[in-house]
Amino acid sequence: MSGNRRIITLDKPFAMHRGGELHGVEIAYENWGRLNGDGSNAILIFTGLSPSAHAASASTDPSPGWWEDMIGPGRAIDTDHYFVVCVNSLGSCFGSTGPASVDPGTGKRYRLSFPILSIEDIADCGAAVVDALGISRLASVIGPSMGGMTALAFACMHPERTASVVLISSAARALPFAIAMRSLQREIIRFDPAWDNGNYEGHGADAGMHLARKLGMISYRSALEWKQRFGRERASADEPVPDHPFGIEFEIESYLEHHARKFIGSFDANCYLYLSRAMDLFDLADHGGCLDAAADCLQLDRALVIGVETDILFPLEQQRELAGLLQAPGREVEFEALPSLQGHDSFLVDMDRFRPVVSRFLRG
Amino acid sequence: MSGNRRIITLDKPFAMHRGGELHGVEIAYENWGRLNGDGSNAILIFTGLSPSAHAASASTDPSPGWWEDMIGPGRAIDTDHYFVVCVNSLGSCFGSTGPASVDPGTGKRYRLSFPILSIEDIADCGAAVVDALGISRLASVIGPSMGGMTALAFACMHPERTASVVLISSAARALPFAIAMRSLQREIIRFDPAWDNGNYEGHGADAGMHLARKLGMISYRSALEWKQRFGRERASADEPVPDHPFGIEFEIESYLEHHARKFIGSFDANCYLYLSRAMDLFDLADHGGCLDAAADCLQLDRALVIGVETDILFPLEQQRELAGLLQAPGREVEFEALPSLQGHDSFLVDMDRFRPVVSRFLRG
Repeated sequence: MSGNRRIITLDKPFAMHRGGELHGVEIAYENWGRLNGDGSNAILIFTGLSPSAHAASASTDPSPGWWEDMIGPGRAIDTDHYFVVCVNSLGSCFGSTGPASVDPGTGKRYRLSFPILSIEDIADCGAAVVDALGISRLASVIGPSMGGMTALAFACMHPERTASVVLISSAARALPFAIAMRSLQREIIRFDPAWDNGNYEGHGADAGMHLARKLGMISYRSALEWKQRFGRERASADEPVPDHPFGIEFEIESYLEHHARKFIGSFDANCYLYLSRAMDLFDLADHGGCLDAAADCLQLDRALVIGVETDILFPLEQQRELAGLLQAPGREVEFEALPSLQGHDSFLVDMDRFRPVVSRFLRG
Repeated sequence: MSGNRRIITLDKPFAMHRGGELHGVEIAYENWGRLNGDGSNAILIFTGLSPSAHAASASTDPSPGWWEDMIGPGRAIDTDHYFVVCVNSLGSCFGSTGPASVDPGTGKRYRLSFPILSIEDIADCGAAVVDALGISRLASVIGPSMGGMTALAFACMHPERTASVVLISSAARALPFAIAMRSLQREIIRFDPAWDNGNYEGHGADAGMHLARKLGMISYRSALEWKQRFGRERASADEPVPDHPFGIEFEIESYLEHHARKFIGSFDANCYLYLSRAMDLFDLADHGGCLDAAADCLQLDRALVIGVETDILFPLEQQRELAGLLQAPGREVEFEALPSLQGHDSFLVDMDRFRPVVSRFLRG
């Protein structure tokens, strides 16, 4: 059962955390490794905003996954030892139900009729996958970025379902700088006439998504990385020459253009809007009235919190607070502050720093 | 002669630093205080990207200036002692020639036919104003942000014309993070169909300018300020309710909306594009081939460099480098690192920290 992409369909109506319900919810997931006899070796991975469930390659799909260097036989998340499941978030567009899916009640795409999406909904759908797989208690729930918020929500709402969490470059709730960066991305997408109030055909709002992705990239990397990597280097001469004097001049502009072009067409605009807003709305303190009360719900044996010094979207200080919040008698909480240069995206690229930390925790 | 807004017209063609020339260039300026007999008490102020020459109120225009708390009788830039001149930058739209001005050669607005604007051009136009006022050597050239780049360019190209510089939240050249933030603002403006390749009527591209201003504000303030000021506070209920689920929810979004609305209609879109790009293009190292060679041109007696710990657009490290670069035998160079919360904009709002530093330098 390694590497299959599977979809579960919920047979009951799914009640959304902030109201409304969905019928016939489908959740796509992939898995690697083998579940052991007592079902004690399972790991659930929640993703950041944009990845699919294809976290790693497999015999059935040899294309590299978004966390290829982290997951596999002998790797940090060792599929020789663990049964690893990655879910595509509810609200996304890679097999799981989301705003781009057809509403079985109307036969048309949900678009903006999709109910408000909450991180808690994504967590609950992860729990549904775990149920379907017959796993009563996970060895760990792992999540980077939005996935860390989702892992927190999971551990809070289903405290008996996991022994540990690994929260990477995440937070208990978004701060205003991160909200501003995401809110502006959403406004830019909505400003694209092709967005058409969500009623586009195809992926939707390519130009708006292109600009929003550039803003996203600015928030995902770090000024220090770019200073060292690009400096004031000029873009190579084979860049397209625009018909006005404000085109690409510097290598940093070329880099952003390249990444934005790669992204458009790969993600549905309405799904992006819903997931982006869900990150702003999430607040662990909603579970119990304050952060401490929420933390009191947790029944974790162990927790690992990893943050990066150059992260401006989920600043290190938030990971430090999170690690403090998770402290409880008898619980082992590790906090790692990594000096990676690549900002929020470091968990995707600075593997030499992340792998040993994750590996040590999962072997411990 | 206090507080008059005046305009000088250059009688010779003005050769632009990166090619092309302008005819009949007009430069708007305002002045406060009185020039003394030997002309030794004059201060020239260059502005950031968007302000006019109206840095302070005066009897002829009692409206508060953009640096009202800094300039005036008994204030840090003391008009009882100094004759203070502030120029509106070439390329801007508050009386000085820029892309929104009529090209005397065609009788039509320059728009995108305006030559590439350089910080050096703005500096040269400041020198022309100083000439017209009969000032041979300034006591100081003061510039915050883009104005600091301009002050540097002035001191490098006209080394005999000033005894000192005060460089505030500025840099010898832009780094890639700042270039990315400005480049994306320009792309957003150009994406507005109302920009019409620069051929709009009126101010142009209001919606694009609105979005660009929000991005600008994100770069001008600091995450720490917003965390303390807004936290996760929700916007007040009297915010307009949009017809989609992605409108204003948090107070930080309301704050950005408020500032963006104030800005649109107040600045010409093409002028914004030209000035924004000029900041990216500026590199002090162009004067002599490297920064050290450029610094060797300077003939300053004194220099003051002020930076702010929370500035992400012109990070403190750049001010530190600048102060190091200005060091020379017999020259007094002061460097002040301020712990202001308001990021790049601190020089406009954290007056209690900035005033004493500027005051002490100008009295020293």
